[in-house]
Amino acid sequence: MTKWIYAFGDGAAEGNAEMKELLGGKGANLAEMASLGLPVPPGFTITTEACTHFTDTDDGFPDGFEAEVKAALGRIEKALGRGFGSSETPLLVSVRSGSRASMPGMMDTVLNLGLSDSTVEALARNSGDERFAYDSYRRFIQMYGNVVLGVEHHNFEDILEDYKDDHGYGLDIELTADDWKQVVAAYLAVVEETLDQPFPQEPNDQLWGAIGAVFGSWMNSRAVAYRRIHSIPADWGTAVNVQAMVFGNMGEDCATGVCFTRNPSTGENTFFGEFLVNAQGEDVVAGIRTPQALTEAERETTGSSLPSMEVLMPDIYAELVDVRERLEHHYQDLQDMEFTVQQNKLWMLQTRTGKRTAKAALKIACDMVDEGMFDKSSAIMHVDAAQLDQLLHPTLDPEAERKLLGRGLPSSPGAATGHVVFNADDAEARVANGERVILVRVETSPEDINGMHVSEGILTTRGGMTSHAAVVARGMGIPCVSGAGDLRVDHSAKTLIATGCTVSEGDVITIDGSTGEVLEGVVATTQPELTGDFARLMEWVDEVRTMGVRANAETPKDAATARSFGAEGIGLSRTEHMFFDPDRIVHMREMILAKDVDHRRAALDKLLPYQRQDFQELFDIMEGLPVTIRLLDPPLNEFLPRTEEELREIAEAAGTDMAAVKYRRAELDESNPMLGHRGCRLGITYPEIYEMQARAIFEAAAEVAKAGRGVAPEVMIPLVIDRPEFDALKAVVDRVAAEVQVAKGIEFSYLVGTMIELPRACLMAGEIAETAEFFSFGTNDLTQTTYGFSRDDAGTFLKIYYQQGVLSSDPFMTIDRNGVGELVRIGVERGRARQPDLKMGICGEHGGDPESVRFCQEVGLNYVSCSPYRVPIAKLAAAQAAVAQTGG
Amino acid sequence: MTKWIYAFGDGAAEGNAEMKELLGGKGANLAEMASLGLPVPPGFTITTEACTHFTDTDDGFPDGFEAEVKAALGRIEKALGRGFGSSETPLLVSVRSGSRASMPGMMDTVLNLGLSDSTVEALARNSGDERFAYDSYRRFIQMYGNVVLGVEHHNFEDILEDYKDDHGYGLDIELTADDWKQVVAAYLAVVEETLDQPFPQEPNDQLWGAIGAVFGSWMNSRAVAYRRIHSIPADWGTAVNVQAMVFGNMGEDCATGVCFTRNPSTGENTFFGEFLVNAQGEDVVAGIRTPQALTEAERETTGSSLPSMEVLMPDIYAELVDVRERLEHHYQDLQDMEFTVQQNKLWMLQTRTGKRTAKAALKIACDMVDEGMFDKSSAIMHVDAAQLDQLLHPTLDPEAERKLLGRGLPSSPGAATGHVVFNADDAEARVANGERVILVRVETSPEDINGMHVSEGILTTRGGMTSHAAVVARGMGIPCVSGAGDLRVDHSAKTLIATGCTVSEGDVITIDGSTGEVLEGVVATTQPELTGDFARLMEWVDEVRTMGVRANAETPKDAATARSFGAEGIGLSRTEHMFFDPDRIVHMREMILAKDVDHRRAALDKLLPYQRQDFQELFDIMEGLPVTIRLLDPPLNEFLPRTEEELREIAEAAGTDMAAVKYRRAELDESNPMLGHRGCRLGITYPEIYEMQARAIFEAAAEVAKAGRGVAPEVMIPLVIDRPEFDALKAVVDRVAAEVQVAKGIEFSYLVGTMIELPRACLMAGEIAETAEFFSFGTNDLTQTTYGFSRDDAGTFLKIYYQQGVLSSDPFMTIDRNGVGELVRIGVERGRARQPDLKMGICGEHGGDPESVRFCQEVGLNYVSCSPYRVPIAKLAAAQAAVAQTGG
Repeated sequence: MTKWIYAFGDGAAEGNAEMKELLGGKGANLAEMASLGLPVPPGFTITTEACTHFTDTDDGFPDGFEAEVKAALGRIEKALGRGFGSSETPLLVSVRSGSRASMPGMMDTVLNLGLSDSTVEALARNSGDERFAYDSYRRFIQMYGNVVLGVEHHNFEDILEDYKDDHGYGLDIELTADDWKQVVAAYLAVVEETLDQPFPQEPNDQLWGAIGAVFGSWMNSRAVAYRRIHSIPADWGTAVNVQAMVFGNMGEDCATGVCFTRNPSTGENTFFGEFLVNAQGEDVVAGIRTPQALTEAERETTGSSLPSMEVLMPDIYAELVDVRERLEHHYQDLQDMEFTVQQNKLWMLQTRTGKRTAKAALKIACDMVDEGMFDKSSAIMHVDAAQLDQLLHPTLDPEAERKLLGRGLPSSPGAATGHVVFNADDAEARVANGERVILVRVETSPEDINGMHVSEGILTTRGGMTSHAAVVARGMGIPCVSGAGDLRVDHSAKTLIATGCTVSEGDVITIDGSTGEVLEGVVATTQPELTGDFARLMEWVDEVRTMGVRANAETPKDAATARSFGAEGIGLSRTEHMFFDPDRIVHMREMILAKDVDHRRAALDKLLPYQRQDFQELFDIMEGLPVTIRLLDPPLNEFLPRTEEELREIAEAAGTDMAAVKYRRAELDESNPMLGHRGCRLGITYPEIYEMQARAIFEAAAEVAKAGRGVAPEVMIPLVIDRPEFDALKAVVDRVAAEVQVAKGIEFSYLVGTMIELPRACLMAGEIAETAEFFSFGTNDLTQTTYGFSRDDAGTFLKIYYQQGVLSSDPFMTIDRNGVGELVRIGVERGRARQPDLKMGICGEHGGDPESVRFCQEVGLNYVSCSPYRVPIAKLAAAQAAVAQTGG
Repeated sequence: MTKWIYAFGDGAAEGNAEMKELLGGKGANLAEMASLGLPVPPGFTITTEACTHFTDTDDGFPDGFEAEVKAALGRIEKALGRGFGSSETPLLVSVRSGSRASMPGMMDTVLNLGLSDSTVEALARNSGDERFAYDSYRRFIQMYGNVVLGVEHHNFEDILEDYKDDHGYGLDIELTADDWKQVVAAYLAVVEETLDQPFPQEPNDQLWGAIGAVFGSWMNSRAVAYRRIHSIPADWGTAVNVQAMVFGNMGEDCATGVCFTRNPSTGENTFFGEFLVNAQGEDVVAGIRTPQALTEAERETTGSSLPSMEVLMPDIYAELVDVRERLEHHYQDLQDMEFTVQQNKLWMLQTRTGKRTAKAALKIACDMVDEGMFDKSSAIMHVDAAQLDQLLHPTLDPEAERKLLGRGLPSSPGAATGHVVFNADDAEARVANGERVILVRVETSPEDINGMHVSEGILTTRGGMTSHAAVVARGMGIPCVSGAGDLRVDHSAKTLIATGCTVSEGDVITIDGSTGEVLEGVVATTQPELTGDFARLMEWVDEVRTMGVRANAETPKDAATARSFGAEGIGLSRTEHMFFDPDRIVHMREMILAKDVDHRRAALDKLLPYQRQDFQELFDIMEGLPVTIRLLDPPLNEFLPRTEEELREIAEAAGTDMAAVKYRRAELDESNPMLGHRGCRLGITYPEIYEMQARAIFEAAAEVAKAGRGVAPEVMIPLVIDRPEFDALKAVVDRVAAEVQVAKGIEFSYLVGTMIELPRACLMAGEIAETAEFFSFGTNDLTQTTYGFSRDDAGTFLKIYYQQGVLSSDPFMTIDRNGVGELVRIGVERGRARQPDLKMGICGEHGGDPESVRFCQEVGLNYVSCSPYRVPIAKLAAAQAAVAQTGG
């Protein structure tokens, strides 16, 4: 029989940290902490399998499940000497979601469960604090009413606001126990009115409702959106943690807080955290009150006037420092912990791997190697490759002039400039129009996820460094300044008010997530320094990885950037990108619109010197590293003139008449250019184009070779369907190479290979490998044809696919292992079967995506090629994949 | 060591009829005939492997080859007591191509090889006919000069014409031996002048030149075009047959002819053939002289005034009748034989399986079963499925009024109407513009192949029933009237002159290839009678085949046609085709352009009754046979209005404004609609569309079921990428089915399945099969995405691909076994692995293509679906595939 429940508490647990798939991250770590003997309130975890059973079938909870829950609850009751629903010593529990991957704030939680008209009285008696008891009860009714029963928040908020207005209260703290009793009565009434049935008074009913709601929250739209952005499969499901409540809000000897074993922003090995006295945990995360520093050092740094925990609660602090040591050594990684102090007793509510900035990740990884905690391979595995992106972009130029608008917490590093927007929808709309935006909010909430994802930076005026905005922004690698309290947001007027100045929607500001500064207008930036911990880690990366990393580059600037980031060659140089220069486009168009081969050759002759020059520059910059040049690929009509004037210009350049040019223009129109006359189809039908390009490549190579410098051109034929097609074009290239070598009187070596980017090419890879000298998998086009999705058109429906969970991630971002990936695997296997040493790589977007890079390692590619800025990411991902492959 | 040469003659041979791959059809059959003891002039066959070696490498002839040729030649010399190049008793040989598949007239041939200034004298002496010797020599110089040396025909023709003019000769027959000597001298001079070197006088040089030229002719453009049309792979290569010459033109006791063991046009079991006295074989095929009948019966039928061979050469005739018996019994099939009579001795030059009309094929197959020659399975294998098409189209209505323009030979059956064109280029040009054409020529030649292929019918004014035009037209299944001598073509004026009337280019005529009539204008046609031999064979077909055959049909008319041809259900009903009716298109457009789901539903409500009516009619016609209905598939913009007026109409129907309609119109534009928002993407994003269609289907099914009649709807979801997508839509369909069954108070059964038409669907077929209730492979779209070829756009480059031999056949016509086929195979295997009994079929063009049907049998599909007119073809092909699979 399936075991649906795993209990923990009292220095023991049925689960452990390895069981994240079954118990979720929170549940597995609660079990682990309990086993370590840390003070964990007793509880139990309902497995993710139960959730999957619940969401996949219409049967509701699985068989035997109810009995298991009852038994587990009994153990908590026994451990604490309390009774669930007891009117003497009632047990209250929290019910929280906890999935395999961290999804902060994405899913629903119910606290204080077990309270009812009868148990609240007992709680008042037990705690000796009637006000606390009724405050807890009203919180519970509101939370449960909203999360489980679906009664909207405003119903409760309206009651409370009205009550405060009627009684002249300003803050919640002014309400007495009797006030709360009346609020509770009104809350219960509004629930009954809305639902036509009373609020459930039976704790067991409450519990089952809450478990069902948490399971159900796995499929809510916020959770679905979060999963899409973070590529989390829907079928993982969430676990549910039912745990005895502890209270940080039972008086001044109570507190609640969040802490990190090291500084998650800088990576420094200093204890770092925030807490609130007399508060519930959610208060810290929600950023409603600005919290106090954990350590005295931290308090000094932030200049806070509130006392640190180190000073305020020295015993608890000492105990927490001990927990910090034990957990970090136990997990060998940065830990992010939640704790509550109830009447001077410390309770650990959660520990998990701490999110950190890229900079912190590098420092922590390097420091832990130095501290002897782990080796270089482990260090490599401790840095999130995707996150590295944060370090690879420009930061504010320290010399640049700046006008400070305000200052907040440096919550996610990096500088960002953009037009101010005040809500997520506006952010999405402006970005859709091609603008860069900074999302400005009082505080963010999970509803803002989509808007945050598209923003350049995030600015909030409330909340700490562990607030929602800060945590999410760090995860996304987006610069964030949080809790900028000297700025004020007027949502209705859509303005941001600073001292002596008002910023309106659409105005440009710059934020520096590394310093917390908010600046007017555009501020100059400088390139990142890729030294120190970064350089150290990259050295280890280069020792470990087995795949090469090249860059996609056409321009000298891109090529130079690529080399500065350590690219080991160019994996894709798209020759067509070289034709858009105004000097060239006219001849390109002349070529395309030529009425016959002679006119086409005449136009090509004009393009040849430009291309030769381009290639020579690339060869010079790459100093003998391989340079893969893809011959003309896109449908010709991408270059076609749109206006009469452009057409006239071409007719003149070609010495022909408008009618002929227009006729040819119409002739080139296609229904589906992506599947039309493009790629090497052009090479077969107009071999003179590829001939010109080959000539430009080889003449450039000859020049470089003559000057005694290294040169390694790799000519790539795009979009082949099989070997005869490839052979026909390789013959053209080889012929030109021979001609140029004879004419220039110098020999040089070169390769002729192909892009494998159609399903048929993957299937025919064995035959193609008989003559091709390298393969480069073009997974952009392969994804288009495998799915039948045009990348240009798929946006309209893919959004709905994600919303509905029909697709869990964007196959153009991360390679689809099932479909596209299998075709790549087939291509690799068949190619290698014929030519075991065939060099194979990947070019295109997937080459810079860590998960896809891992796939490339698994299938045995020799290199990946990506955009210059993503080279270090690809290198790190490649190293991680290599470590993972060797079981490191 | 590879054996490159196979000798034959003298009642023995190294090869046999089974060795067609190595020796070509001609060579294998010459060997077989020699082994049977038939009178075959001695010779040898150079293998196709030698050709492949020659064309694939730059090395020329393979090692050891020269010595083998020399030895083989020596054996001929010995057998005949003649010497190659001997000035006493010279041996003359023919050098002919002969590939695995028959390619009549496609490749080059050289006759009389071995003649030179010295051997011609010996030939004159040996034959006692100096005129014959020099006539042969000038023929040789012209043929060799053209084929091997590349001197154009007109050079020789001009000399001969001038000579005849100068000497007042009208016909070649008037020239004397001395005249021919002078012509020979002029021919030799023009060769030397053109090439700057003398005509080769050394027979060995001549032989090597000729062998190289025949090998080279395998890659000439005519041969490439023929191979494309007949799907013959380029790597088969051709064999070369070198054989002692025999002469049918040595006097009045000589003849040459072609005969068939049965009548190839009607199939009647009567000896059938044509011959010419004192002529070379090429004269019969080329149609230069109108030949004489072989039998007296045939002469009477055609009303010829020339004597039959039966009367003219009774002994030879008797010997030939004996050969006929022996060969037909030996090969158990219709034989097409070439013979030559040299000075009253019969020589057999070739036998091969005879091409025949579909009608003849049916009759011969049935007759041979009745004669006990073979069984029903063999009969099935003896009819070309593709050719059956000839019988399935309308023929001239015997009651229709007609104006006879002229009469020719009934060379390829069937009636055709079209605009007259006078050359192949004009035919291609007009067909490209959407016209139907009749190609009218004095006689056709291999250069006309492309033009013939696109024509509805072919009319020639010269040549017999075995002329080039007749043979090729029968092979292509195109109606042909040949040798219509009472009509005259004026090529320069582009007119066809009949008695009392002139037909100009572009005028419409009708030809009847079954009667030989040429008629003015359009003549009414009648449906074919599918009885007699056809019905008999189809009965056997139905006994033997294991795959079902369905039809693609949307309209009641198509459905009725499909049933009359024996379709076993509808395999594809494209619902979108139902929306183009003017009554409906406005609501369809209204639906597409709706601004939101409510407006879309309003428009769909208007479409529902139409769709329900459509489906009810289909169900009624199909009487309980399965009807597969594909839900909306094409990109919505296929339905979009183009004109302002249409837009206004829609705005009115929808009660909205023009601006909104136009905005939505622009929103729906796509870069690559084939890969865009179409197929079940529409069902996911606008589930209300599929809901409406499902409702229409099930309401119609309920009506039919209520009336107590059978109904078997199969709802097909198009273009799925994986199971979650399919499941989401199946849920919609199942829900509607349940609703309708409840509302109508009747149960009916139905299936929900999917089209497998994307590479990803093939790869994910295992998962999809877990919930899909049938698969239908959509190989049109699968071919598009596997190749990256848009069918609408590929025409521009595919033509050049064929010309260059990069592609040998159209993957949209015949399934590409290597790529698309492998994906289908993967889909079948994975689907069956999860659901062993899953019903699988194919719909689309390939379902009616015999070669593709064979593939479907091999991979284990349950049925094919094709256009109604191709149902019998698919059935026959399925039966043949079943026989082939069981090794029958």
